[in-house]
Amino acid sequence: MASPAKNLLYAQSGGVTAVINTSAAGVIATARRNKAKIGRVYAAKNGILGVLREELFDTSDETDAAIKVLAHTPGGAFGSCRYKLKDAVTDAAKYQRFLDVCAAHDIGYFLYNGGNDSADTSNKIAALAAERGLDLICVGVPKTIDNDLAVTDVCPGFASAAKYTAVSVLEASLDVAAMAETSTKVFVYEVMGRHAGWLAAAAGMAGKGKDSAPHLILFPEIAFDEAKFLDAVKATVASVGYCVVVVSEGVKDAAGKFLAETGIKDAFGHSQLGGAAQQIASLVQAKLGVKFHYALPDYLQRSARHLASAVDVEIAYKVGEAAVRYAIAKQNAVMPVIKRLSNKPYRYEIKPALLSDVANHERVMPRDFITEDGFGITPAARRYLEPLIVGEAYPPYENGLPVYVKLKNKLVRKKLEVFAG
Amino acid sequence: MASPAKNLLYAQSGGVTAVINTSAAGVIATARRNKAKIGRVYAAKNGILGVLREELFDTSDETDAAIKVLAHTPGGAFGSCRYKLKDAVTDAAKYQRFLDVCAAHDIGYFLYNGGNDSADTSNKIAALAAERGLDLICVGVPKTIDNDLAVTDVCPGFASAAKYTAVSVLEASLDVAAMAETSTKVFVYEVMGRHAGWLAAAAGMAGKGKDSAPHLILFPEIAFDEAKFLDAVKATVASVGYCVVVVSEGVKDAAGKFLAETGIKDAFGHSQLGGAAQQIASLVQAKLGVKFHYALPDYLQRSARHLASAVDVEIAYKVGEAAVRYAIAKQNAVMPVIKRLSNKPYRYEIKPALLSDVANHERVMPRDFITEDGFGITPAARRYLEPLIVGEAYPPYENGLPVYVKLKNKLVRKKLEVFAG
Repeated sequence: MASPAKNLLYAQSGGVTAVINTSAAGVIATARRNKAKIGRVYAAKNGILGVLREELFDTSDETDAAIKVLAHTPGGAFGSCRYKLKDAVTDAAKYQRFLDVCAAHDIGYFLYNGGNDSADTSNKIAALAAERGLDLICVGVPKTIDNDLAVTDVCPGFASAAKYTAVSVLEASLDVAAMAETSTKVFVYEVMGRHAGWLAAAAGMAGKGKDSAPHLILFPEIAFDEAKFLDAVKATVASVGYCVVVVSEGVKDAAGKFLAETGIKDAFGHSQLGGAAQQIASLVQAKLGVKFHYALPDYLQRSARHLASAVDVEIAYKVGEAAVRYAIAKQNAVMPVIKRLSNKPYRYEIKPALLSDVANHERVMPRDFITEDGFGITPAARRYLEPLIVGEAYPPYENGLPVYVKLKNKLVRKKLEVFAG
Repeated sequence: MASPAKNLLYAQSGGVTAVINTSAAGVIATARRNKAKIGRVYAAKNGILGVLREELFDTSDETDAAIKVLAHTPGGAFGSCRYKLKDAVTDAAKYQRFLDVCAAHDIGYFLYNGGNDSADTSNKIAALAAERGLDLICVGVPKTIDNDLAVTDVCPGFASAAKYTAVSVLEASLDVAAMAETSTKVFVYEVMGRHAGWLAAAAGMAGKGKDSAPHLILFPEIAFDEAKFLDAVKATVASVGYCVVVVSEGVKDAAGKFLAETGIKDAFGHSQLGGAAQQIASLVQAKLGVKFHYALPDYLQRSARHLASAVDVEIAYKVGEAAVRYAIAKQNAVMPVIKRLSNKPYRYEIKPALLSDVANHERVMPRDFITEDGFGITPAARRYLEPLIVGEAYPPYENGLPVYVKLKNKLVRKKLEVFAG
């Protein structure tokens, strides 16, 4: 006999983070403590694509011990994807398929772990299900290293990437400082962040005084001014002996063109960026003729669980927990968000926000977080950022390497025909 | 009245590491415990250049507490340089200046912390001093993340860079695996190592089974074969779904030309490399048409004290200690090196080796550390590498960032004329 409790479907969406699995663990462990209300927890293989393909993992096959290790394993344990459902008319067949899969597997709760695109999708599914009178509760779980979700104080994943960025820039700058006399004079460090400079700002935490690295930060919020930038580099090299530049992948010129525009677009229609550091370094070399190096941490910055922020890990777990609580309470079309109560110590509460308030809004950095010259962070930015990176949450190690889990990921037997859509 | 004990001069040379300051701390703390034999410890500003310029820091001004923090501070606290003295005839004036500075500051011990170029320089100074009947003992202190020094089992600095590399590749690979369905199919990670593939090999520790990342490693010891490489990438993407490639900056084609040759030479006459990952990624994109990403950790890999190997930290400190002991014992023209006694647990002893046996020799990876197909590491390589990264040696943190020291670095008053050479 089937359990009277409906099953829960969890899916990961978009770029993964050091702590998205922490949220997954929060979801699974909380569901397991609420067996009267929630049957099985299924996880979609490779995000929403797995739902459309009816490729669902039954997490009941994973031991409690494995879920504990999952909580400190980076990446996306069930697979994620960059795939966005369009509106309910254009993609009507896909929405129908989604609902069919939910019906076939007795799914009463859908938890979608992602950014603003995912909030939009969950919101659309919730609306459609409500319209049809279906018993399907949709709850978002926030996640993005870009920190650009509206409503919430911070997005799970960001603070760990921020800590990684600040520590890496601090350490590399000590290296550059030691060698500048005969070696690299300009070091460029590229951070992720398509439209919002939150990670670029995080690098600023590495420096304390006027002359301490990073000396110049290039934010996507500030139009790139080549002459002004080169003057600043030259002045810094002259006074400090070297210059550390942090550049966001999303830096644009005054005409709004990405410095690193490649022309390639991803599945969401966003431009695929990369190479901003290289462009800046080449510019410095061509115009100032000084020796440069550049670093491109790329995926390292969003997977570095070895250097996670303890605050981030805690928040990531708690939003997973809260999402399940909301689902059980039949709070539909919401997402748990963080509301800051104090800076020092960092205190916060977790509250439900409407998915419609989160969906498709992008939160850029307030202008007063960036210094007037456009190259640094203000005390207001520090007050916001510094509490988020406090505390280390090291994973356990064995023989010199962190212990991460590879789940069994056993697929549930399919009940439907193959979906052609 | 001057102390009867001669002073000690310490200098850092070449690329700095996460633990070169650990060796410096070992030198200073040990000298402080032997005040009857060693007067003051001077540290040259920016390596040997500081000696020629008579720019010496008096480390007596640093507190014991500061030296303790120095032991876990990355970078080179006194500054380092890429500057090589030529032979004693060509650079006769510089060698004379070196001896003049030593005489002016009553220096009886010179400890040079660097790689094979530095061992060569120390050896030449030792020979010259002996020839002139001067009371100057020269001792090398090993250091290089390249791990290419002869005679020693391992070079301080390497094991931390190795641990950073293995952990970073492990974590980034989990990210790539999660996203491969709709995103990056080929991820390329570039490691340092001009002529020896030790760090490239270290990345191999991230993977255990046949299909686990990194799938392909490109060593400088193996001539790059484009067709064979592309076939392997294609096969891996087909079977695994994605492919993680680790490429050494020093990879060369069959004609011996660096994949990433830029034409720029550094002060030692070595080609300045960079861009191997980018070249490999572009090749994959052009020939296989799959989506790629690449990471270039650059200085991060050699400054990541936050992820240092405990074995490395211990060794780095002990070679500093040993160098002072040798100096006191008047063991001239030697360098403390590591002799491995057992793999598991890693046991070793520290012994003096002749600088002449270290100088200018480069130790490449034994061919039997690389699999027959040239793309992976063998069990023999694992037996060598794995013990070196065991143990974490975290720095203390305050408000989310590691606590590193900035020394006072007070210059000693000059006694000589400016050196024109």
